Amino acid sequence: MQVFAYGAHAGDKPLEPLRITRRDPGPEDVQIEIAYCGICHSDLHQVRAEWEGTKYPCVPGHEIVGRVSAVGLKVTGFAPGDLVGVGCIVDSCKHCEECAEGLENYCDGVVGTYNFPTPDAPGWTLGGYSQAIVVHQRYALRIRHPEAQLAAVAPLLCAGITTWSPLRHWNAGPGKKVGVVGIGGLGHMGIKLAHALGAHVVAFTTSESKREAAKSLGADEVVVSSDAQQMAAHLKSFDLIINTVAAPHDLDALLVLLKRDGAMTLVGAPASPHPSPNVFNLIMKRRTLAGSMIGGIPQTQEMLDFCAEHGIVSDIELIRAEHINEAFERMLQGDVKYRFVIDNATLAE
Amino acid sequence: MQVFAYGAHAGDKPLEPLRITRRDPGPEDVQIEIAYCGICHSDLHQVRAEWEGTKYPCVPGHEIVGRVSAVGLKVTGFAPGDLVGVGCIVDSCKHCEECAEGLENYCDGVVGTYNFPTPDAPGWTLGGYSQAIVVHQRYALRIRHPEAQLAAVAPLLCAGITTWSPLRHWNAGPGKKVGVVGIGGLGHMGIKLAHALGAHVVAFTTSESKREAAKSLGADEVVVSSDAQQMAAHLKSFDLIINTVAAPHDLDALLVLLKRDGAMTLVGAPASPHPSPNVFNLIMKRRTLAGSMIGGIPQTQEMLDFCAEHGIVSDIELIRAEHINEAFERMLQGDVKYRFVIDNATLAE
Repeated sequence: MQVFAYGAHAGDKPLEPLRITRRDPGPEDVQIEIAYCGICHSDLHQVRAEWEGTKYPCVPGHEIVGRVSAVGLKVTGFAPGDLVGVGCIVDSCKHCEECAEGLENYCDGVVGTYNFPTPDAPGWTLGGYSQAIVVHQRYALRIRHPEAQLAAVAPLLCAGITTWSPLRHWNAGPGKKVGVVGIGGLGHMGIKLAHALGAHVVAFTTSESKREAAKSLGADEVVVSSDAQQMAAHLKSFDLIINTVAAPHDLDALLVLLKRDGAMTLVGAPASPHPSPNVFNLIMKRRTLAGSMIGGIPQTQEMLDFCAEHGIVSDIELIRAEHINEAFERMLQGDVKYRFVIDNATLAE
Repeated sequence: MQVFAYGAHAGDKPLEPLRITRRDPGPEDVQIEIAYCGICHSDLHQVRAEWEGTKYPCVPGHEIVGRVSAVGLKVTGFAPGDLVGVGCIVDSCKHCEECAEGLENYCDGVVGTYNFPTPDAPGWTLGGYSQAIVVHQRYALRIRHPEAQLAAVAPLLCAGITTWSPLRHWNAGPGKKVGVVGIGGLGHMGIKLAHALGAHVVAFTTSESKREAAKSLGADEVVVSSDAQQMAAHLKSFDLIINTVAAPHDLDALLVLLKRDGAMTLVGAPASPHPSPNVFNLIMKRRTLAGSMIGGIPQTQEMLDFCAEHGIVSDIELIRAEHINEAFERMLQGDVKYRFVIDNATLAE
């Protein structure tokens, strides 16, 4: 099947309309007509070759929602017409320890939604800036939100699960004090999810101007991280800090805010390293500095169901496909509250 | 009570014989005649003012073993003649969450065995390079080893518990693959303890010449960390790495050896920072970089009892008090297998 898409032919070229081919659905495949696709910062890194190994044409996008248009003979959980999502993963080895535990995100054979090897043409995966996608049923997620919210559900497939997974792994919930550093695409979801999980949520921002916005997202407190007095008031008090900031910054200023056995989890990786953290800050309170990468399929479904039940979606700005390049520039400036989502119906126009 | 001790009057002066005063035992105090005291690298850092805030005269030593010589009226667990130990902690606030959980080592009011504020003369604590010490019964440990092993038990009070605590906290045991980096005072205990706990133990050393020694300590495998091929054979395979090396070094080379959800725990803090670890190495497998500091009193007792049951002691070189300065120099050269222990009976000569 030939479909319209938006992608780039080189790292220094803008994205433009393309035609790409999707495979015919196999016995276990779900074919999805994509309604909306979120724009993640990773899309920009990959398409601009800021990360290594980008293959062109590159069609990014891994915050995909839409409607099932066809299913293979052995597909059991989905039927045409179902609302579904696809996140960052479209395949994995299916037999390693990680896959067995539903942690496909940590499978060494994981196949990302774009720029990963595949037998399909052209030899690497092409993402959600396109009219349709075909995935093995294991990697399709059920969406239980009302259809009217569908566009705002899209960012849950990456920004949502990327913050949900560490919140769950490190047991955020009632009685726990959770920090969220950075109030962007990931951070705004981290605040909403931590709040809905019942944690006491403190948002960290570099900008006083974001205080009210952070509170309206669900933060119980907001700390301007450049204000030493505000920071000192939270010394040794956090169970968990979800750090979404990918730019190099002082980790020590945050590590000292963790209580004994507290953990700071990094979900953004900087292009150049953070200043090296002070080992004493880890040793003195048995603190943990950790990382977390998106989440597995069962946990992504758990997150989507939780969000449907709690009425949680992303705050988005819906755009037409021809504005993708402009959206990239605005995303770089932090000029979006909090996620751009493409109306994929506009790809055909 | 006046007793003989060994200490320094300034950071650039050698240690020399001193007389110090120990308080009379209060109702809950245990007075201990010190038989042996291990020499820890921390002793050297503190006495030479390589760490901040050293007060002089400084009498180091926190690997203390001996015999109870008197007890206060309210002391229930100890009687004169008992073999006992004192580690890095001689007091704490006794009412915080950490103290309540037996994690006195993480109490904000912890009083270290030397160089910490105390109402006793001269106003700061004086350590185990002395003939006697008086501590609240909470901080005295029971020693169940045969008396003939007493000198070799001393290093368990710091080197032993410092490696035991992270091994227990991160669940080292059968079916787990545990790395121990650095084969010195801490590392040689880490290997012995991890082995006795039933883990598969891999020792990391920079020196091929330590291979046989590491195996005889209990390592199942030995890896020369400068050998890329040997290192690559262990990629993504460790549940836990206990890193005892305090000199700045490449943490990434070790982090990539952790499997998904694996942890590397630093128990040594470098004077200048390690090169900053690559955040991708944390994110990709949800790895943890953590710290750990000695251990609480109940866990120290657990470790001592475990060691008595399993016949585990430290490998030591027993020295006379007048050789302490020489021992410091040899320790700096790594010329000790694996811990110097002072025969405190020689303090009086």
